[in-house]
Amino acid sequence: MHHKTRLCLFLTALFLASAVLISGHDSQTDPQREFERCRRKCDRRSPEARRICEDRCEERRRRQEEVEAQPGGDAGEREVEDKQNPYVYEDRHFGTDIQTRHGRVRVLRKFTEGSGWKLLRGVENYRVVIVEAEPRTFVVPNHWDADVVIFVANGKGSASLVRQNRRESFNIKEGDVFRIRAGTTTYLVNRDNNEKLVLVKLAIPVSIPGHFQAFFGAAGENPQSFYNAFSDEILEATFNTRKERLDKLFGQQKQGAFLKATEDQIRSMSRHKEGGIWPFGGESKGAVNIYEEGPKHDNKYGQLYEVDSSEYKPLRDLNVAVSLANITQGGMSAMNYNSKLTKISVVIDGEGHFEMACPHVSKESRRESQLPSYQRVGARLRRGTVVVVPAGHPFVAVASNNRNLQLLCFEVNAEDNESHLLAGKRNVMKQLEETAKELAFGVPAQEVDEVFNNQQEEYFFPGPQWRQQRQDLLADA
Amino acid sequence: MHHKTRLCLFLTALFLASAVLISGHDSQTDPQREFERCRRKCDRRSPEARRICEDRCEERRRRQEEVEAQPGGDAGEREVEDKQNPYVYEDRHFGTDIQTRHGRVRVLRKFTEGSGWKLLRGVENYRVVIVEAEPRTFVVPNHWDADVVIFVANGKGSASLVRQNRRESFNIKEGDVFRIRAGTTTYLVNRDNNEKLVLVKLAIPVSIPGHFQAFFGAAGENPQSFYNAFSDEILEATFNTRKERLDKLFGQQKQGAFLKATEDQIRSMSRHKEGGIWPFGGESKGAVNIYEEGPKHDNKYGQLYEVDSSEYKPLRDLNVAVSLANITQGGMSAMNYNSKLTKISVVIDGEGHFEMACPHVSKESRRESQLPSYQRVGARLRRGTVVVVPAGHPFVAVASNNRNLQLLCFEVNAEDNESHLLAGKRNVMKQLEETAKELAFGVPAQEVDEVFNNQQEEYFFPGPQWRQQRQDLLADA
Amino acid sequence: MHHKTRLCLFLTALFLASAVLISGHDSQTDPQREFERCRRKCDRRSPEARRICEDRCEERRRRQEEVEAQPGGDAGEREVEDKQNPYVYEDRHFGTDIQTRHGRVRVLRKFTEGSGWKLLRGVENYRVVIVEAEPRTFVVPNHWDADVVIFVANGKGSASLVRQNRRESFNIKEGDVFRIRAGTTTYLVNRDNNEKLVLVKLAIPVSIPGHFQAFFGAAGENPQSFYNAFSDEILEATFNTRKERLDKLFGQQKQGAFLKATEDQIRSMSRHKEGGIWPFGGESKGAVNIYEEGPKHDNKYGQLYEVDSSEYKPLRDLNVAVSLANITQGGMSAMNYNSKLTKISVVIDGEGHFEMACPHVSKESRRESQLPSYQRVGARLRRGTVVVVPAGHPFVAVASNNRNLQLLCFEVNAEDNESHLLAGKRNVMKQLEETAKELAFGVPAQEVDEVFNNQQEEYFFPGPQWRQQRQDLLADA
Repeated sequence: MHHKTRLCLFLTALFLASAVLISGHDSQTDPQREFERCRRKCDRRSPEARRICEDRCEERRRRQEEVEAQPGGDAGEREVEDKQNPYVYEDRHFGTDIQTRHGRVRVLRKFTEGSGWKLLRGVENYRVVIVEAEPRTFVVPNHWDADVVIFVANGKGSASLVRQNRRESFNIKEGDVFRIRAGTTTYLVNRDNNEKLVLVKLAIPVSIPGHFQAFFGAAGENPQSFYNAFSDEILEATFNTRKERLDKLFGQQKQGAFLKATEDQIRSMSRHKEGGIWPFGGESKGAVNIYEEGPKHDNKYGQLYEVDSSEYKPLRDLNVAVSLANITQGGMSAMNYNSKLTKISVVIDGEGHFEMACPHVSKESRRESQLPSYQRVGARLRRGTVVVVPAGHPFVAVASNNRNLQLLCFEVNAEDNESHLLAGKRNVMKQLEETAKELAFGVPAQEVDEVFNNQQEEYFFPGPQWRQQRQDLLADA
Repeated sequence: MHHKTRLCLFLTALFLASAVLISGHDSQTDPQREFERCRRKCDRRSPEARRICEDRCEERRRRQEEVEAQPGGDAGEREVEDKQNPYVYEDRHFGTDIQTRHGRVRVLRKFTEGSGWKLLRGVENYRVVIVEAEPRTFVVPNHWDADVVIFVANGKGSASLVRQNRRESFNIKEGDVFRIRAGTTTYLVNRDNNEKLVLVKLAIPVSIPGHFQAFFGAAGENPQSFYNAFSDEILEATFNTRKERLDKLFGQQKQGAFLKATEDQIRSMSRHKEGGIWPFGGESKGAVNIYEEGPKHDNKYGQLYEVDSSEYKPLRDLNVAVSLANITQGGMSAMNYNSKLTKISVVIDGEGHFEMACPHVSKESRRESQLPSYQRVGARLRRGTVVVVPAGHPFVAVASNNRNLQLLCFEVNAEDNESHLLAGKRNVMKQLEETAKELAFGVPAQEVDEVFNNQQEEYFFPGPQWRQQRQDLLADA
Repeated sequence: MHHKTRLCLFLTALFLASAVLISGHDSQTDPQREFERCRRKCDRRSPEARRICEDRCEERRRRQEEVEAQPGGDAGEREVEDKQNPYVYEDRHFGTDIQTRHGRVRVLRKFTEGSGWKLLRGVENYRVVIVEAEPRTFVVPNHWDADVVIFVANGKGSASLVRQNRRESFNIKEGDVFRIRAGTTTYLVNRDNNEKLVLVKLAIPVSIPGHFQAFFGAAGENPQSFYNAFSDEILEATFNTRKERLDKLFGQQKQGAFLKATEDQIRSMSRHKEGGIWPFGGESKGAVNIYEEGPKHDNKYGQLYEVDSSEYKPLRDLNVAVSLANITQGGMSAMNYNSKLTKISVVIDGEGHFEMACPHVSKESRRESQLPSYQRVGARLRRGTVVVVPAGHPFVAVASNNRNLQLLCFEVNAEDNESHLLAGKRNVMKQLEETAKELAFGVPAQEVDEVFNNQQEEYFFPGPQWRQQRQDLLADA
């Protein structure tokens, strides 16, 4: 009885949600204008009230944007739809921080914005940033109030990290992983003449949970130099220099954060060793390459590469690891879950599909403590899609038939994590006692074994279509 | 003008609020139906608003339930009543997770739900769970997205902990303490023919603060196996097996999470050593018994048993300890407070009374910063009552006259904690200089000493009634 | 376009804000009475609703107080005004905890109250407390549910720290830094006949984030002893003493937390070594003096003194350091930012001015992810002003022309922090490659160097007026 009611509630919720969306759609107004009007009203409120008011505005805008972005979802389907699904993020969930002819910076919205406000509180303080620099460009020096872990997804460049009294410059290439400590003034160069330099960053703010900012010092009016925020007397005294002169220096640069550089300029900033040695307090190398040590797991259907704190010490205090799954076209990952860590996965290349079993999703609309019923969280994967997989949740990723799928994963809370395989040669079920199998499945242990022993591969399997094809071949033979 | 508007809004709100409460009381409706209607309305809201809305519903329901549960409390009394008291929890604050003929699982609501939203934020991420399995039953394998510390409150059983490539099975009995790491697939057996197996668990979620779920893999339709959440193509490819066969395997089991087992089945799953050795990464024993090392403190009026990270390493990274106070009938604990840890106490057996001095309770309704006036937080103790004692708060527990009181305590934030005794042979006041005593109490130091030296016992004292009886005896003599 | 809109929004916000303030001002009511009436109404609400209600009251009161305190700010100015500025706190942001003829305790409101609710969440759990004891007074013993770091800003006293079975008493003097562990019963003496004893404390609550309370045991009716919160039977049994006698002991003291002491009493509580040795678990000295090791940095324009966990181990687990900047009259600090730590600065003596470049302030009124535009956060500094400087934010402090400015800083999250200098002899920009300077500033590297090399001092510079005077002298010559 209770159970039924809950189910109803849930469907009602679904219905209402979509209802809202449709009505939201009908109003033929520009979301941004709508949003600003909404926001203006909030300003009259007391801080507490204003926050809630503003969140509501954000929420409404996002809803509208999503409606415009979507071909009106399949509300009947059992699969949780994107718009109620806090685990999957598309292009539209990124804000554009910087965009010029020569490059752009995109920041994924907070995981706790919108429907993730409760389910993703555990990763509230992690932000995903994607930087793209055109060939032969220079990224103006700046520091962040966040620690940053960087993966070089594409291209060739050089990075310079400046701290009090020392600078470490090193060349970077595809597959490199490195950390930039909070407050380190950093500038980048795309050394290549044709290739984009693409960096995927995980930012971990140090003072405001989930919020960070870039601070540009060496700059002018665009990007604005923070020096310009100080009063004239202060600046004159600080630099022991007259205002006119300072205005000249801090007013010159107007071309933005990404600048075209000449070949000579590029060359002069590229004379660094690959990787390079980090002189800061006996820390390890400036960068390590994820392909360097070869794959941790490797078969015909895919490879897994990984960099953890044992290969690269600067990851230790962040308790973060980085892994890259390259799933062969038509292949899939073995179904598994992680004991402790939450995966923040970014599709670097290729296309595919993702499925996760999720007991928490429907929880909003029912009492906390009930026997879980699992929902499928599904998503199409394409370059730039971000998927969050919390600890304990079983999941699989499948590569499309025509191209390999490359999944970069930032693994948060990684120390002492164990990955538990749910199928294949070495799956957890094989550890159960005969009697336990019998009782748990309600069939003879032998029948359980037959199913769980039928998949002989490990970590990566042939995917649905691969399997289909093989069967067709057998059929023909 | 603006100001006026806000004021109006504000008064309206007030009016509505009280209206709700009154109607809530008058209306002779079933709280649960009322609650569901209330919740349904929330679903239309934006996430932010919905949370607040839903909390309000929760709150109203609880209020009603409490009204029904209580013989209209002594509102005049100085003692804080249960319904404003976030430190004490009764049966009605537990939700029933699973309930079958063969066993049940009950989960205590979040400490930050309702009136604890502010005062207990420090223990938001700890949840209390009580599991009861009937004689000769099997608990279906499942894993949690939480670390768990378990105390065996009653009975004899066996536990099997399955992790990648290894299984540790060991027998458990009353008094055993053990930890299950997040993600470990676990199944339990009640080996006894007559006794219930009762486990008290402290769950510490790893990804969503204060929220966790059980994941059943080896199962069918009830409990639902998470395998069933995945699409058919995925499952067929994963197991390299046709759908029909999988449906058979994952559809069979329909009898719930607790299963009756035959004597043979029980025997086959009970051939484990008591305690057992944990083979996982050089960790200590699978379980330790709290009685093993004898009481830390012991007199005629009670005993204190304890297991901390020095006796059982797996508790270290959780910063948790487990203690058991057995207070002799008519006895009481010495008044004391803890320097750092918060006690989450569960009454295992017996009856009694609890008192705590609390400066925070009344804070809601006055300015943050005022000279504290202490209120008494009191509670009747009976089996299943849960009491939270934050750091710094002086408290006592008294056993009823007819039975011993057994208090199990999960001690959160336990490392480097000091317990400070406020009365008895070795109380803190004895450390004050003469002059300090004089000034602080405004009487000659000697008078202070006379009172503080009058109680010669330590840790456990004769309680009020015991004392009474003794005086009567003296009177008769 | 967007940018314009944002700017407009921001100005509108400013306008509305001040509008509110004016209307708030018109109502000729006493803020405190208004506030209490407001609060009383909240008590009827459900906890959730009550919190919001109470916050609204707090907010309204603070707004009013600010209006009364301010000469109607320069709303047009680019500098962020105090009332939207969560980084600067004045006298009116302190609540008075205790106030008697013989001393007072003032507690700064939570950093997350009001406009800091979002920007200062990172320091939510730190509270600033200022204690002033008149000459020859005794502060009644009490313990806190918080760890405390103390700086002796003025006077001579003695401190007694009482824990189970031991007491450590030592004399304290200006410049001393010491920690009191949560739960330690502490009493203080001002040993001096003329000087006030002034302590600046950083409190770090152990159980309720951002909330702590004092627990008075050795006391009577004022301060109330927590013993009085327990029921008579419990007290009689606890002390094995009849009620009448207990009432006498715990009812006597009525003179408050600060007591006048006779010369003999003072003397008897002052026979302690300076600093003193801490016998607790091999910890370091009871107190260290910040001047002991001499200044870390020192020139004609100022000195910096510091105590970190390497000088004083008890600071390690708190991850806190304490520093004292003494800026010579007319001098200023070198512009700099910290990589990790947040500074909570308290003006101990003197007057001056403060400026900080802040990208986060205006964020409320625009989308999360935009190229930052920096605002100036400015404040007049006078004794008792508290300024918060988050990681990454460039800032300067300037001393007035007539007196030295003494800034005490509690440095939160201090381990592995690096301070980055933005001007002077060794500034970060000097580490940039020639080409990077050229590109970043859009001028020849030489021009950049000329400006950045013009200030030859380090850490402390001549301030604006000093500089002015010098130039005038040169002019006359």
